[in-house]
Amino acid sequence: MPGSSFGQAFRITTAGESHGPANVVIVDGCPPGLPLSEDDLRPDLARRRPGQSHLVTQRQEDDEPEILSGVFEGKTTGTSIAILIRNKDQRSRDYGDIRGKYRPGHADFTYDAKYGFRDYRGGGRSSARETVARVAAGAIAKKLLATEQGVRIVGYVTRVADIVADIPDPASVTLEQVECFADGAPNPVRCPDADAARRMIERIDAARKDLDSLGGVGEIVAVGVPAGLGEPVFDKLKADIAKALFGVPAVVGVEYGLGFAAAELRGSEHNDTFAPGSAPGAITTTTNRHGGMLGGISTGQPIVVRAAVKPTASLARAQETVTDQGEATTIETRGRHDPCLLPRFIPIAEAMIAIVLADHWLRHRAQNA
Amino acid sequence: MPGSSFGQAFRITTAGESHGPANVVIVDGCPPGLPLSEDDLRPDLARRRPGQSHLVTQRQEDDEPEILSGVFEGKTTGTSIAILIRNKDQRSRDYGDIRGKYRPGHADFTYDAKYGFRDYRGGGRSSARETVARVAAGAIAKKLLATEQGVRIVGYVTRVADIVADIPDPASVTLEQVECFADGAPNPVRCPDADAARRMIERIDAARKDLDSLGGVGEIVAVGVPAGLGEPVFDKLKADIAKALFGVPAVVGVEYGLGFAAAELRGSEHNDTFAPGSAPGAITTTTNRHGGMLGGISTGQPIVVRAAVKPTASLARAQETVTDQGEATTIETRGRHDPCLLPRFIPIAEAMIAIVLADHWLRHRAQNA
Amino acid sequence: MPGSSFGQAFRITTAGESHGPANVVIVDGCPPGLPLSEDDLRPDLARRRPGQSHLVTQRQEDDEPEILSGVFEGKTTGTSIAILIRNKDQRSRDYGDIRGKYRPGHADFTYDAKYGFRDYRGGGRSSARETVARVAAGAIAKKLLATEQGVRIVGYVTRVADIVADIPDPASVTLEQVECFADGAPNPVRCPDADAARRMIERIDAARKDLDSLGGVGEIVAVGVPAGLGEPVFDKLKADIAKALFGVPAVVGVEYGLGFAAAELRGSEHNDTFAPGSAPGAITTTTNRHGGMLGGISTGQPIVVRAAVKPTASLARAQETVTDQGEATTIETRGRHDPCLLPRFIPIAEAMIAIVLADHWLRHRAQNA
Amino acid sequence: MPGSSFGQAFRITTAGESHGPANVVIVDGCPPGLPLSEDDLRPDLARRRPGQSHLVTQRQEDDEPEILSGVFEGKTTGTSIAILIRNKDQRSRDYGDIRGKYRPGHADFTYDAKYGFRDYRGGGRSSARETVARVAAGAIAKKLLATEQGVRIVGYVTRVADIVADIPDPASVTLEQVECFADGAPNPVRCPDADAARRMIERIDAARKDLDSLGGVGEIVAVGVPAGLGEPVFDKLKADIAKALFGVPAVVGVEYGLGFAAAELRGSEHNDTFAPGSAPGAITTTTNRHGGMLGGISTGQPIVVRAAVKPTASLARAQETVTDQGEATTIETRGRHDPCLLPRFIPIAEAMIAIVLADHWLRHRAQNA
Repeated sequence: MPGSSFGQAFRITTAGESHGPANVVIVDGCPPGLPLSEDDLRPDLARRRPGQSHLVTQRQEDDEPEILSGVFEGKTTGTSIAILIRNKDQRSRDYGDIRGKYRPGHADFTYDAKYGFRDYRGGGRSSARETVARVAAGAIAKKLLATEQGVRIVGYVTRVADIVADIPDPASVTLEQVECFADGAPNPVRCPDADAARRMIERIDAARKDLDSLGGVGEIVAVGVPAGLGEPVFDKLKADIAKALFGVPAVVGVEYGLGFAAAELRGSEHNDTFAPGSAPGAITTTTNRHGGMLGGISTGQPIVVRAAVKPTASLARAQETVTDQGEATTIETRGRHDPCLLPRFIPIAEAMIAIVLADHWLRHRAQNA
Repeated sequence: MPGSSFGQAFRITTAGESHGPANVVIVDGCPPGLPLSEDDLRPDLARRRPGQSHLVTQRQEDDEPEILSGVFEGKTTGTSIAILIRNKDQRSRDYGDIRGKYRPGHADFTYDAKYGFRDYRGGGRSSARETVARVAAGAIAKKLLATEQGVRIVGYVTRVADIVADIPDPASVTLEQVECFADGAPNPVRCPDADAARRMIERIDAARKDLDSLGGVGEIVAVGVPAGLGEPVFDKLKADIAKALFGVPAVVGVEYGLGFAAAELRGSEHNDTFAPGSAPGAITTTTNRHGGMLGGISTGQPIVVRAAVKPTASLARAQETVTDQGEATTIETRGRHDPCLLPRFIPIAEAMIAIVLADHWLRHRAQNA
Repeated sequence: MPGSSFGQAFRITTAGESHGPANVVIVDGCPPGLPLSEDDLRPDLARRRPGQSHLVTQRQEDDEPEILSGVFEGKTTGTSIAILIRNKDQRSRDYGDIRGKYRPGHADFTYDAKYGFRDYRGGGRSSARETVARVAAGAIAKKLLATEQGVRIVGYVTRVADIVADIPDPASVTLEQVECFADGAPNPVRCPDADAARRMIERIDAARKDLDSLGGVGEIVAVGVPAGLGEPVFDKLKADIAKALFGVPAVVGVEYGLGFAAAELRGSEHNDTFAPGSAPGAITTTTNRHGGMLGGISTGQPIVVRAAVKPTASLARAQETVTDQGEATTIETRGRHDPCLLPRFIPIAEAMIAIVLADHWLRHRAQNA
Repeated sequence: MPGSSFGQAFRITTAGESHGPANVVIVDGCPPGLPLSEDDLRPDLARRRPGQSHLVTQRQEDDEPEILSGVFEGKTTGTSIAILIRNKDQRSRDYGDIRGKYRPGHADFTYDAKYGFRDYRGGGRSSARETVARVAAGAIAKKLLATEQGVRIVGYVTRVADIVADIPDPASVTLEQVECFADGAPNPVRCPDADAARRMIERIDAARKDLDSLGGVGEIVAVGVPAGLGEPVFDKLKADIAKALFGVPAVVGVEYGLGFAAAELRGSEHNDTFAPGSAPGAITTTTNRHGGMLGGISTGQPIVVRAAVKPTASLARAQETVTDQGEATTIETRGRHDPCLLPRFIPIAEAMIAIVLADHWLRHRAQNA
């Protein structure tokens, strides 16, 4: 009933706050024999890390993971894997002002309403700091899926404010295209349309200087997912992926395939045609408006999902609000924060989708091995 | 791990197919002492029922519920409540053609991929027929929430194809405004903007005559939800509502508050301002762009959620597809089906949201009673 | 959080009371393709049925099951299976006296303490009537295990009052030896030691005539369980089997292998020696004091578990008690009941163990397929 | 589906092995506002600690806990609490011999059968070392129950080999009587019958010198548990307590109240009489043969449960066994281990029962607040 566990067969449980000593994740249910070390976790942790560019929060964390259990002689044992990531750059003094005031757009008020009081340092458990644990767990899920099923999961930014990227073929975008420009320079905004990326970067910089923030849209594609994953009725694959993404702070919308645009089409325009695949007896669809799932179960086509992320609620400018006693006041959020959440959202969203796919692959095996 | 249960503290488990003998739901965890009889279930079952208007499938089912347990002397006992709804108008001959062919946009192919074979009669378990069980359970959740917390849940259609309704104040829409026109005549499309409703009806009729189908958007509003519901991290209220809605057939997008439109705003434009409420010490927000949840926990403002529903995949016109042996063929779906799913989606979506809210209210009480 | 579901991968959910219209079970997660019809359920339902002999309650129920879903063309589809069993011989007038009085040894008082009121007819949900749903579900689990893994589960009575059966080799006892004497006559007490069985029958008859009741011990053996089932730490196989058995009314003790007698031995006397098995590379133990599990995981040896069942609490003689207002009174339980629960406990216990084994087999496959 | 989580509303998840870097537990669902620091965890950790007396393993661990999250300004916040306990005295060289051989009575063989390989150092995850995490979590549950409900949980040893303690009134035994003799000297065997305790100590010493081990029985009593905890049908309180205890290594039997001895009584001898309690309207039973639960729900009487613990499987003497290739060999377990598990079993059992009671108290509140 409490909310810090996710998944059934591949299950993660997390703990940790923005300004506490550490974040922890326990991954339970990972199959035995998967080669695993801290080196497998570091790349995605680095992609999520604060301070990685001028577009994101300047909090300095090395996010160095320590695997405490579940790995022996370089391989997973099948028992629970605990990973510890210490917090190092807590500056709680930054947040003294928010002790008795509610930041607009944040969970300060709702945590007080729920629990009667709150750890106000950096948002406590409601901070996106907790996603560091998800990314560590997601790296295990990604490796498991890649090794065992050849699944590849890549996310990227398709929109910041009114700048919309042009991604002709989502299923062919590579991690390299997301992380770097064609000349090899890092792409801090994680948009594979270089022209759009440059405009996004400028726009985010401008918003930051204006003490404001921007929202946007991220798209994540999973290629190589076998047909048949997902459960009928409530635990459809689309249902669990959506739950996973809406569990990430600041996500306000999720859609698959054509998504909301499907509302405008007729059935004859929207249905994808089944057709013989390249291998004998294989079946494919000639288009992928359905986003890789039918009846909530994977079709073998790429899973394509988009999430809308609201503009960062923390603003360094004065905003009207109330105290926890209900009296009108103003607040400026002086702590470090991201002027746009999208660049760091991408590895978090990939991680959550990897966890859902690993979970549903194992769930499927239970019944249909 | 299988997918026919939903919720934790208020938990439903369902069974039943389109053309089997019956659909069943077991509701476990309902608090004791709630007055309950079949009369409480009939109104929403009638709103979901096939054959209720010319806009929906003409299958004839009375959807008469029988409560088999958990109610004694007119009140819930606290133990599990089973509800049985017999299927009566199965016409399996309608579906003989789909035995060996995959209907585009349907789960025929994915069920075969998952299980190796399928109950092809009317889509079996993948049919929206199973939602009758959800609506019966949802009626209990609605009554519980209304009786104990004064929560009111109302849904309506905001879009069909390119016709968009104008709903000036979502939180004030009443069930009567949704179900009837101003003159008391039934509003079969469940859109409270009468002008838009009339155009939607015409458009759906035209699509039906053209052997085609339409998609759209539904909006559901929950008023009176107390602040504090929802769990941190994975089981945010927005995450569980989204899972609930994406579990409904044909849903391809979900958004809260401004949703995808939030991507275009700056933080200073998107944040809602906290302000003193009308009661002493009470706290409110002056606007509700956040859709009733912050940090995934309810704020006490109306919860506003929209779902995009794809156009019905079943079409009475010929479509290209393959056989289950992977050979190209064509198919016409001659079974009865809805030319637009939105009118019947509304009571289903309300039911699922009621179940999530009841569940989270009880979950909240466990920790914070 | 409510308690009417059991299992994770092979999950059952039940509803129904002693004197309500029906009992229902939904089985979710059963692999597809298992041949199944009502005929598979009837034998164990008949073994559990009231009125089967003079040793048990004389309530008359045919316990005829109706499969409502999840089976198509004679095989399980992989989706949820609902089974309905109507109650037919409710005589609520028998129970009018217990409306306001608490029967000693029963759940009347605790249900009132929990829920504020109760369905007093025949004990409502606390009646062993609900186990009819478990036995129906267990028959599916048994068939699955037998078909897919060659597992055989047989239970029998080893003790009634101070009469203790001599069972030289638990793993070789057959269903026929339990159900019938050597001459083919039914063995109503389900004890394969014919001499002990005859004395048990006499003793139960005598207790019944004396308006009293007897307790005893049942032993259940599962042969053919593959090594490796069970999860480390909390979900050990021994933990889940114990939970399953203690969930059955009137069970007050559970032990494996030597059980409580192990407390008297030294380690050098208790440890079973590993030895080469008959097949090349196979490993066995030369004795089975461990009862088929080590570290909570199956060893491949027969699982041997015993449960102590208290004497039936319902007595037709006057007993002192209190009213629900806390005033002293006396009560006679005139309803029909078993003078000894053991004969009907056996098929219930077998069913629960089958459900646990099916569940853990599927859970094991998820991670280790 | 994996097995490292326990509980629903008060849920713990653990990780860690005997010779890995650390053990970790995440406690999720604890109500907010409970005063908590490491000082609350130390006393029970000290009672479980290896090396505390000559009766137990001489491994030296300080078992110093670090709370990583979920506590702010000395109080629980309502979010997940992570506790880290580093391993310090691993001597893996002690275990080199068991790399390729199966220790009789241990999980070496079953882990290999399940996972294909194992962390052989000290038994890895199957070692009782993992219970350190349970005891830390149990200390939180104990404090919660004591503070909010006045529940007191005390366990003690009632039997070692054939030495049986005389405990006239289980409900009145105090922690002090368990931990110390009348003169204040520590009672290393945790048996409040001083005479029996002295004989147990001698007997354990003798077994140790003889390179052998002893089993026994522990009894745990929970006083002050309110009536009404436990769920009907599968999640009876007796079912969940039994699961909790059988989840502890080496437990081979569990019984409540009279337990297996109830099999010998008639109903008229076994039923406890309800009687008016001391407060107006209060209801009690004049005896407690039922062990504090009826219908699996607490009656308000003391909960009395006993667990049989087998003799330690590790023996420093040669035992016959096989290699992991199935070849006959002999093995001596030279690692440090307890000659009798009972003294350290007591705080572990108390912890598990506290966790179950906290969980069921919160579960009860969800439905019946």
